Amino acid sequence: MFLAPLSFIVHERLLERWLERTKAPEFDLIEGRGNPVIIAGYGRYGQIVSRVLRMAGIPFTAIEASFQQVDFVRRFGNKVYYGDASRLELLESARARDAKLFVLAIDDVEASVKTAAVVRKNFPNLPILARARNRVHYYRLRDLDIGREAIEREIFLSSLETARQALELTGMEATQVARAVALFKEHDEKLMDEQYAVRQDETQLIQTTAQAAAQLQEVFEADVKESTSPVPARDG
Amino acid sequence: MFLAPLSFIVHERLLERWLERTKAPEFDLIEGRGNPVIIAGYGRYGQIVSRVLRMAGIPFTAIEASFQQVDFVRRFGNKVYYGDASRLELLESARARDAKLFVLAIDDVEASVKTAAVVRKNFPNLPILARARNRVHYYRLRDLDIGREAIEREIFLSSLETARQALELTGMEATQVARAVALFKEHDEKLMDEQYAVRQDETQLIQTTAQAAAQLQEVFEADVKESTSPVPARDG
Repeated sequence: MFLAPLSFIVHERLLERWLERTKAPEFDLIEGRGNPVIIAGYGRYGQIVSRVLRMAGIPFTAIEASFQQVDFVRRFGNKVYYGDASRLELLESARARDAKLFVLAIDDVEASVKTAAVVRKNFPNLPILARARNRVHYYRLRDLDIGREAIEREIFLSSLETARQALELTGMEATQVARAVALFKEHDEKLMDEQYAVRQDETQLIQTTAQAAAQLQEVFEADVKESTSPVPARDG
Repeated sequence: MFLAPLSFIVHERLLERWLERTKAPEFDLIEGRGNPVIIAGYGRYGQIVSRVLRMAGIPFTAIEASFQQVDFVRRFGNKVYYGDASRLELLESARARDAKLFVLAIDDVEASVKTAAVVRKNFPNLPILARARNRVHYYRLRDLDIGREAIEREIFLSSLETARQALELTGMEATQVARAVALFKEHDEKLMDEQYAVRQDETQLIQTTAQAAAQLQEVFEADVKESTSPVPARDG
């Protein structure tokens, strides 16, 4: 099949057009012995995870609910099953019972939470690593007993890298920049925990946020003072 | 104004309803001397950058084109201007001419590229740090002469962190995991460059991708062999 190069570049638009004229096929059947890792969601996030696993020679089963996405990534040589990862039969056929790890890389919040719930309930011993779109998604995954260290907010680390470069470009000294970013990261993870505890109460959420910002500034200033305090002069 | 806690949690839906009944006001006027950093886009990404800058005591001017988003984040004590960062008058009033840094954190690809073009053309000496949604967005920013080290793919680092944890959980040894992730990162950055060069040619893009995957596996295997080669036995 010939596709004009430009239509590759704008593949999202292409997919929309396909969506209109292509009738989605039946879901795929997953056969065979199963793999140690199951990846649910084969968009930008799941693809990075799968490429790292492939490099390391770790076999995985990838499941994606959008047929258009499956069709697209298959053209790049990827082996992906088309299906809804929240369906128990599909998880059974992917041998979730014998798997070592479930990577939840679905971007849609509802589909992600639904899948997490099904996996938790039916395969309580299968560890989950999850992608969270935002705070609310993060909280809902926590509600399903997924530990905070196992959930990554999808843009958190990249935005922190931009922040790091911003500090450098505004003239902050390199070691100071590293401390600032580490401090922020640590502090923000604590804040996520505190806010998880009061997530039902908007007034408290706003209060915690304001307090945290003020606190963080103080902590950073104290840190700067300490690290730049004058070194005792040496006598010659 | 009282808002039920739940409506906070589902604030995206709330915003949609607001959108229907709230008429957007005129754009804000930006007055004053201007700040060293301008942040365009005050969603999830721009907010993290701004919180780090605030912690470090670096003043910034944040601009956001969605009034609903502005209204929402203001309730948390943030100072954000409502406006379209691709409008030259607005950039002038934010004193872009005297700024040290422009952070392009807009998530919408078209709005982001448009803003980048206006900033590049009118303030050629103003450094830009940019968020890219995906490869295509990344390529278009590169086309505007934004260096690759100044562009972050928004989910790249978080997905790499999930991959890192996945390697650990499947039993790979910690130092090996660190090497694997570093190797992948370095390799993927090179791949982005190679693919940028052939971005108009789908056949070549598919070829480069397949080659890269095979290469990466080889490089990793060689790396593993080297690091686990038997240490010469010592004579007693």
